[in-house]
Amino acid sequence: MSDLPSRISVREVGPRDGLQNEDPVPTAAKVELINRLSTTGVQRIEAVSFVRPDAIPQMADADEVWREIDRAGSVRYSALVPNSRGATRALDSGVVEIEAVVSASDTHNRKNVNRSTEESLDDIAGIIALAHERGATLQVIVSTAWGCPYEGDVPVSRVVQVAGRAVAAGADGISFGDTTGMATPGRVRRLIGEFRSAYPDTELNLHFHNTRGTGLANVLAALELGVADFDASVGGLGGCPYAPGATGNIATEELVHMVEDMGVATGIDLEAMIDAAADAERIIGRKLPSQVLRAGPRTRTIPA
Amino acid sequence: MSDLPSRISVREVGPRDGLQNEDPVPTAAKVELINRLSTTGVQRIEAVSFVRPDAIPQMADADEVWREIDRAGSVRYSALVPNSRGATRALDSGVVEIEAVVSASDTHNRKNVNRSTEESLDDIAGIIALAHERGATLQVIVSTAWGCPYEGDVPVSRVVQVAGRAVAAGADGISFGDTTGMATPGRVRRLIGEFRSAYPDTELNLHFHNTRGTGLANVLAALELGVADFDASVGGLGGCPYAPGATGNIATEELVHMVEDMGVATGIDLEAMIDAAADAERIIGRKLPSQVLRAGPRTRTIPA
Repeated sequence: MSDLPSRISVREVGPRDGLQNEDPVPTAAKVELINRLSTTGVQRIEAVSFVRPDAIPQMADADEVWREIDRAGSVRYSALVPNSRGATRALDSGVVEIEAVVSASDTHNRKNVNRSTEESLDDIAGIIALAHERGATLQVIVSTAWGCPYEGDVPVSRVVQVAGRAVAAGADGISFGDTTGMATPGRVRRLIGEFRSAYPDTELNLHFHNTRGTGLANVLAALELGVADFDASVGGLGGCPYAPGATGNIATEELVHMVEDMGVATGIDLEAMIDAAADAERIIGRKLPSQVLRAGPRTRTIPA
Repeated sequence: MSDLPSRISVREVGPRDGLQNEDPVPTAAKVELINRLSTTGVQRIEAVSFVRPDAIPQMADADEVWREIDRAGSVRYSALVPNSRGATRALDSGVVEIEAVVSASDTHNRKNVNRSTEESLDDIAGIIALAHERGATLQVIVSTAWGCPYEGDVPVSRVVQVAGRAVAAGADGISFGDTTGMATPGRVRRLIGEFRSAYPDTELNLHFHNTRGTGLANVLAALELGVADFDASVGGLGGCPYAPGATGNIATEELVHMVEDMGVATGIDLEAMIDAAADAERIIGRKLPSQVLRAGPRTRTIPA
C-alpha cells in the first residue's frame, strides 16, 4: 500500500453525468447543487453538457446553468460536448475546460451519435484544434473502454488505438469511461498497463460506474498502479440507461470515504459531501445508491 | 495479478446472517432457499443459527430447517452458535461444522451476549472442546474485527489477541467479520498481515459487509494477499442492524462475478446464483442490494 498516490484529484460529475441520466430537474435546483458542491472542497466539477435539447432534455438549460452558477476560485468547472456544434456553444459560453466523448465500440458510438468511431475521431480532431485556438483544454473521454452493452468485450488494443488517435490529434488528456460498469480489477490493470506503455506522458482520468458492484475495487486496482485522477458522482446520482434500476457512477462520498481512510488525500470534506448527497437525493426525489450516505462514515459511532 | 489464488472457497451465509437480519420468513421458504442454493455449485452453506428463539425469532425454527433441507453431497452445511447451550443443540441436531462468535469489541460483545469478550472466550474454549469431543469442527468468528459501531476503531493488536486465544483453545479456523462495514483495503491488509505473522498455519476466512461500499475492494485486497476463503450472502440478503436501510453482507453473485472475471474460480454457476438471488428477493418481498442481480452479468449483452 506504500506506493499509493498521496493525493488524488476528483472530478465531480453528478451535475452532468448524474443528472443526464435522471428525470429532468429545474434549472434552479441544478445551480443550487453545483453551488453546494463548490463548498465541499472538490476542485473540479463537470457542470453541464452542451447537447441537442431535443435529444437530451435533461441538459436543455446548459447555457443558463453555466451562466448562473457561483464560481468558487478553488474549483475548475468543465463541460462535455458531443460534437463541433456543442464545442462552439461551450466556447461561446466561456468554457475553458471541455470534454469530448467517443465510444471505443463502433455499435455504441453509432447508437449514440449515428456515426462510426472513426468518424467521431475525425470530428474530435477538429474540436481539439478549435478548443486550442480559443485557449481551452480538451480531454477526450473514451467510453465503453471496458465493454459495450451491445458488443460485449472491446479489445484492449482497440481501446488504446482509439485513445491514441485522440492523443495524436493533441488531446490534453484521456479519460477511460466504464459506461455500463463492465470493468473488473484485472481488466483495469490490463488497459492501464497497455495505455501507459504506449502513452506514458498523457494525463489519465478514470470514470467508473458501479453497475455491477466493482466500482471501488476498480479504483483500488488503479490506485495501486499510481492513477490519481477519478470521476465520481455525488450520492451516486445517475443510473444506467441499459438496465432499469441499476446504478451508474461511483458515489463521490464512497470514493472519498475509502481512499482517505487509506491515507490518500482528496481535499474533500467528507461530511460536506454527504450533506450534498442528501441534497441531491431531495432534488431527485428517489433514494440514491450511495452506501456512505445511508450508513454514514465509519467514524460515526452510536452512543453505547 | 499473477499471484491471486486460482480458486477460492465461498461460504454462502444468506440463510443465516442474511435472514437473521430480515423480517422472519416461513420455514418452508428457508428450506426452499437452502435447497436452491445447494444446486448453484456453492460448496458451503451456513444454514441456521441455534440461538434463543425469544432473542432472535428469525431463527426460532433452526432445528426444523436443519432437519428438512435436502443435503447435496457436494455441499458442507454449517450452523452458528452463540454459546454452549446453542452448541449442544447444534451437536444434538447432527451438525458437524459449527461457528462460534465473539466480538473483538468489549462493548459490542456485552450488547450482544451480556458478557465481556474475555468471558465469551472462556465459554468458547469449552465449546471447542465439546465440539471436538463429538467429532465436529469449530471455527471462531471474531466480529467487529475492523471496527465497532459503539467504540469505533478496534486496535489490530486487540483483534489478533482475541483470535489468538481462540487458536490456543484449539479452534479449527478463524473468521474475521466486518460486522458493520468499517473495513477499507488498508485495514484489511494490516489485520491479515499481523494475523498471518502470528498464526501462519491457521485457516482464515473473511466475512465482509458492504455497508459503506468497500466490500469488493476489501476482497481484492485480501485476494492479493492470497486469502482464498470468503463469506457472502445471496442477493446481499440481510441488512445492517445499526443503520436503517443500509446494506449487510457482500452479495454472493457480485463476488462470483468479479473474481471469476479475474480468473479466480469459485465452482459457482453465476446464472444459477443470480436466479437464487431473484428467489431470495421474492421470499423477502423487498429489493435486495445486489447490483449484479439488477444489471445482470457483464457478459449479458443487448441485441443491437
